[in-house]
Amino acid sequence: MKKSGEINRTIWLDKDQQTVSIIDQRRLPHELVIVELKTVDDVIRAIQEMYVRGAPLIGVTAAYGVFLAAVNRPPDVPAAEYLQRETNRIRNARPTAVNLVWAVDRMAAALEPVDSWAERIAVARTQAAAIAEEEVENCRKIGENGMKLVAEISRKNKGRTVNILTHCNAGWLACVEHGTATAPIYAAHDSGIGVHVWVDETRPLNQGSRLTAWELGRHGVPHTVVVDNTGGHLMQHGLVDIVIVGTDRTTHTGDVANKIGTYLKALAAEDNGVPFYVALPSSTFDWTLRDGVQEIPIEKRDPDEVRTVTGWDQNAGRTVLVPPADSPAANYAFDVTPARLVTGFITERGICGASENEIRKLFPEKA
Amino acid sequence: MKKSGEINRTIWLDKDQQTVSIIDQRRLPHELVIVELKTVDDVIRAIQEMYVRGAPLIGVTAAYGVFLAAVNRPPDVPAAEYLQRETNRIRNARPTAVNLVWAVDRMAAALEPVDSWAERIAVARTQAAAIAEEEVENCRKIGENGMKLVAEISRKNKGRTVNILTHCNAGWLACVEHGTATAPIYAAHDSGIGVHVWVDETRPLNQGSRLTAWELGRHGVPHTVVVDNTGGHLMQHGLVDIVIVGTDRTTHTGDVANKIGTYLKALAAEDNGVPFYVALPSSTFDWTLRDGVQEIPIEKRDPDEVRTVTGWDQNAGRTVLVPPADSPAANYAFDVTPARLVTGFITERGICGASENEIRKLFPEKA
Repeated sequence: MKKSGEINRTIWLDKDQQTVSIIDQRRLPHELVIVELKTVDDVIRAIQEMYVRGAPLIGVTAAYGVFLAAVNRPPDVPAAEYLQRETNRIRNARPTAVNLVWAVDRMAAALEPVDSWAERIAVARTQAAAIAEEEVENCRKIGENGMKLVAEISRKNKGRTVNILTHCNAGWLACVEHGTATAPIYAAHDSGIGVHVWVDETRPLNQGSRLTAWELGRHGVPHTVVVDNTGGHLMQHGLVDIVIVGTDRTTHTGDVANKIGTYLKALAAEDNGVPFYVALPSSTFDWTLRDGVQEIPIEKRDPDEVRTVTGWDQNAGRTVLVPPADSPAANYAFDVTPARLVTGFITERGICGASENEIRKLFPEKA
Repeated sequence: MKKSGEINRTIWLDKDQQTVSIIDQRRLPHELVIVELKTVDDVIRAIQEMYVRGAPLIGVTAAYGVFLAAVNRPPDVPAAEYLQRETNRIRNARPTAVNLVWAVDRMAAALEPVDSWAERIAVARTQAAAIAEEEVENCRKIGENGMKLVAEISRKNKGRTVNILTHCNAGWLACVEHGTATAPIYAAHDSGIGVHVWVDETRPLNQGSRLTAWELGRHGVPHTVVVDNTGGHLMQHGLVDIVIVGTDRTTHTGDVANKIGTYLKALAAEDNGVPFYVALPSSTFDWTLRDGVQEIPIEKRDPDEVRTVTGWDQNAGRTVLVPPADSPAANYAFDVTPARLVTGFITERGICGASENEIRKLFPEKA
């Protein structure tokens, strides 16, 4: 197993070439625990129970899930039937992230034409690794492209620190390396531009205060954790220069599904003239749906995620109940920000406005 | 001490006529603990450390603080100097709630013309009790007036359950009885109108999930706890018929200071055509300030309230740390919702629009 200081990716294939290792992100920031995935069941559990999360990382984990399906095929099951069954199980692990389906479809398309099962295993390994490397490269380019926005704000403000607000975790923990929303932040910080990040804690699972704060602190990026209620006040008082978030699925018309609460920050950004950008690799675009608010399925998760909070007390992880034991709760995991509230998209190809026309101009092959 | 079932007020004068009892609201909903206040220091601690909170209750507690100052005057201190010093200490306990200053000023004005100190004690007791009774009566009328809005929605929807969203706790726990934002809800429920309340948990101190959920459950009102990020999604999907919140200070021009995050819900209400009402007794209006966003002082509290969550685990209260131990946090306690986002005010005199003109029409003596 790797040591803590060596870990700079969220997922990797072990030396045995049949075990996939991931960080159990539920334990961060107080414990860095590596978990080995050896079966499709392991992969589905890791996705459903959110050992891994974030659209790009869910996609890469799903791709390695198809690889593990190939590795573990029981000899007596017909190949085509087995592959279809296992890929369907992975596809259905979570409903909102489009990368999950995208990655599984791409793996299946690569495997189907291959005759021998031994060769399929090899192709699956190569293909999953390729998806992972492409995600890394896409995030690197998102950083390069998005950094220009941050640099421009810094220049306009004569070098004053640029205040960036982000919601949830669209950092390297949500991807493989770099992150999406964090990529421009890391790139700007590394190139000497002064940045400070307002980190929404992001209830119910606190991916902001647990994961984004951990990432930024580990990288030396100045940041401040705030409750999700705070962004409007900060924007009213000129304390936010730009909002950058990730997305789990964005329609080709520009509607953005992301962690619940993103829409509220987009409304506040519009009300205060603060630019609101969404960073994403092209694999997160959905080329089929037109109306994100009506059509993107929104996952409802266990109400106990709302009723409880997990944190750290006396050197141990501990979960506390907040409301009365008999008060019901509801747990909508995502919301959809309409395109009209989005200033632009930061992709690996460049930056574009939030309209079907602008998006298609950047991805002409999808027209 | 009263038994749990007997408690239907947040503050009362004990039989000894020199001890004020309150509920320690930090311990709710898992423990109902009564705390006795015997000195001005006790009162200031109760207000600052939020044993009591909510603008009307802070006002009543402050009034009883002036009474306790009268009771406890050391014989060797000159009366005028003592009264001024003690009332100033109480006035400065928290910055945002205007009722605090209003109640202390009213107490001081009642005491100053009285000659003998013994008589001052009696006048202070009577005056504090009068302020408490007026708050109760105001809240009862707010309920009566606001219930008409709920009844109208119910009628329009042919009796379908009316979905009400509220933020923080503006219930009887924030007042003496009835509450402000909850008064119309209780009145509607008691009169047989079907209501269901979306309860924002209200980080950082979770007054929604701890206090509002407890109140509503105790009263039998159907409710569902959600994280603060959820309201926008609910409104986008037609799941909220009306938003009703309280306020800590509202300018006579209609700008509303309330718990941090209120502004975000007002933006979502406007974006989705959902009526957004603020319930308040007239003592919460500020007749001096014109621009709420620029002029109302916003309290910044201990960042550890953001970094930690207190809940219940294995029959004990427990506080857990969420972000990395070295990540800083910021804790803005309130925000200001501009009048343009407010549909109207529900007061003890009736309902009015959110403009200086409409407010002054309802309170012509302030013109």
